[in-house]
Amino acid sequence: MPSDLTQATGKRVRLACREGMHTGPTPGLALGYVQANLVILPKDWAFEFLLFCQRNPKPCPVLDVTEPGDPEAELVAPGSDLRTDLPAYRVWKHGELMEEPTEITKYWRDDLVSFAIGCSFTFENALLAASVPVRHIEQSVNVPMYRTNIACKSAGRFSGPLVVSMRPLTPSQAVKATQICSRFPRAHGAPVHFGDAAAIGIQNVHKPDFGDAVEIRAGELPVFWACGVTPQAAVMQAKPPFAITHKPGHMLITDLKDTDLEGE
Amino acid sequence: MPSDLTQATGKRVRLACREGMHTGPTPGLALGYVQANLVILPKDWAFEFLLFCQRNPKPCPVLDVTEPGDPEAELVAPGSDLRTDLPAYRVWKHGELMEEPTEITKYWRDDLVSFAIGCSFTFENALLAASVPVRHIEQSVNVPMYRTNIACKSAGRFSGPLVVSMRPLTPSQAVKATQICSRFPRAHGAPVHFGDAAAIGIQNVHKPDFGDAVEIRAGELPVFWACGVTPQAAVMQAKPPFAITHKPGHMLITDLKDTDLEGE
Repeated sequence: MPSDLTQATGKRVRLACREGMHTGPTPGLALGYVQANLVILPKDWAFEFLLFCQRNPKPCPVLDVTEPGDPEAELVAPGSDLRTDLPAYRVWKHGELMEEPTEITKYWRDDLVSFAIGCSFTFENALLAASVPVRHIEQSVNVPMYRTNIACKSAGRFSGPLVVSMRPLTPSQAVKATQICSRFPRAHGAPVHFGDAAAIGIQNVHKPDFGDAVEIRAGELPVFWACGVTPQAAVMQAKPPFAITHKPGHMLITDLKDTDLEGE
Repeated sequence: MPSDLTQATGKRVRLACREGMHTGPTPGLALGYVQANLVILPKDWAFEFLLFCQRNPKPCPVLDVTEPGDPEAELVAPGSDLRTDLPAYRVWKHGELMEEPTEITKYWRDDLVSFAIGCSFTFENALLAASVPVRHIEQSVNVPMYRTNIACKSAGRFSGPLVVSMRPLTPSQAVKATQICSRFPRAHGAPVHFGDAAAIGIQNVHKPDFGDAVEIRAGELPVFWACGVTPQAAVMQAKPPFAITHKPGHMLITDLKDTDLEGE
């Protein structure tokens, strides 16, 4: 990846993707800019999906929703073209993965509605800035994620379990992390659980359902946050005839700064 | 109004409405329980309206949205029947007020989607508890409300100006009110403006567009909050063929406590 993209604006990274100059993962790029999960659905599925997000705001904090057929995320990335401005996508038919293209122009339809959903990178930057360690970043692996036995509130055809991410922390770090993350309700907010993983239906904290295992050291507890994989899992479970998402780790980078997601 | 309803639960007041025992305004009833604005629209208008609320969360904090045809606000008022459980309604056709019935059973359709939207009573209770005065309550009149020159973010057929409510406060009270209301993002949150009313397009702060004028005393500034009349004004402007709202001041009383709306 071009190293200068780490200090670039969100717009600069989007243009690099549009020009085919960047097709890799986005963690670490455009530092300080908000990155977002992308879900694209036909209009006749959009109300139910927006309702699912509305009813489950911790895993599904909606940052922007486009008008049907409009490929621009006008609120969070003015001038963007969601068909080309992410490094890589996943195209789904009836819940089956069909392709992982680097642009989706040929798939575009006039009835597609795009959803940009907040992501944990925002609060992880805030944790690091406050000297709260983020183990999977230290270990240069993907964050560990787990299906729980906590059911999301369903909406129409969308339902499914809450998926959580985990970061090991000492109790005092967990308190600090709770305070910091409470400031970011549109980036998954405060943790949903800590300690006993079995209490939320996780059999083995060392064997995540998605991502990679990380070390939990003496004196540390696993701390669990609502995760942006939740809405994608709900989409896959609903099996809409057509859907497009970002490829994991290959996010939409917006014009919002992390600090824009603070507060109310 | 039966005086014992002031200390009743939200459910008790809903049942009194359902039985035709209460058809008057709701301020002061079921103290401590969250009251909500109600907007009911046909399903083919529901996505755009939910999107309008999503894009304008300060005036339109969504508390609950029903499945099409379901008259129960399952999340905020389990067991409720939205067709009978408010004291009075307004029925609209093409933006024209048709009737103000005390129940809407005969108007019900399988495609109707109901939206419960947070209201300022929640933060006013918190202000009073913190000894911040609320002038229109002191003066026993309706809160003054104004159309501003601030445009809401439009969504499909829904657009319109931000409507604000006003409470006069001293600077130190305004600071305290900002801190308190920031805790209630789902009840309009922190103020949007204070001081110079003309700066947001209000010609005469003593002549509100809705509600009643209140006294502004020496040393006080007008402080403006986003108002729940905003989504209703957007609905009237969009002129859907059919819509139902609560009659102003005759709200849905939920099972939520004011404290449930605190925090994230």
